[in-house]
Amino acid sequence: MIDPLSATFAALADPTRRAILARLAKGETSVTELAQPFEMSLPAVTKHLKVLERAGLITRSRAAQWRPCRLAPAPLKTANDWLEHYRRFWEGSFDRLEDYLADLQGQPRPKRTRKVAPPKKARTGEKA
Amino acid sequence: MIDPLSATFAALADPTRRAILARLAKGETSVTELAQPFEMSLPAVTKHLKVLERAGLITRSRAAQWRPCRLAPAPLKTANDWLEHYRRFWEGSFDRLEDYLADLQGQPRPKRTRKVAPPKKARTGEKA
Repeated sequence: MIDPLSATFAALADPTRRAILARLAKGETSVTELAQPFEMSLPAVTKHLKVLERAGLITRSRAAQWRPCRLAPAPLKTANDWLEHYRRFWEGSFDRLEDYLADLQGQPRPKRTRKVAPPKKARTGEKA
Repeated sequence: MIDPLSATFAALADPTRRAILARLAKGETSVTELAQPFEMSLPAVTKHLKVLERAGLITRSRAAQWRPCRLAPAPLKTANDWLEHYRRFWEGSFDRLEDYLADLQGQPRPKRTRKVAPPKKARTGEKA
């Protein structure tokens, strides 16, 4: 059984499925309408929708006969929360550029376990 | 050829690979050290590292014989940027809870294309 976060990332690992979510961000719609821009058979689109539905990223209403698809954002929030743990790394990447340049110049760097970026308070990023 | 964002999400769609990234967030380390907590063969870990490396999520230094692995945050930022487009959906999910409850009660809802949450003044990019 795949864990929910893995299911979310797996569902997002496809450009068509991401395009479907982008379309649904504009509002709920039918499968037929969803399929139109993709030059893809209805069964192919349905398959993508099943992946998204299993990952909890869309829901299909039973209220209407056309069963509109709708974006379900909760798993996106969970994925975002996971990524947020790494924010200090991309915001602090200038510090690490220094390390990289030291590598290139063949200077020895001590083996260490270190924090890469300074704690957040002042989002400096780069030192001149 | 898989697009970079799909490669990133695919690489993140595995709990062992996410655990490897969490370990590397504490500092660079060798493959042997990385493998220890996982009760996994070295080749199995190496396979996961290759997926992460192809997705640009880790780099392996050539500066030292033990070839330390290091977190490379740029693709995480790209994934985060993609998810940020959907933030208004999870932040606005109370509005949609109302819709959902209306669904459950079998009340008809008009077919419409609608914005789910009011656009945030700063992050617009779209017309309301």
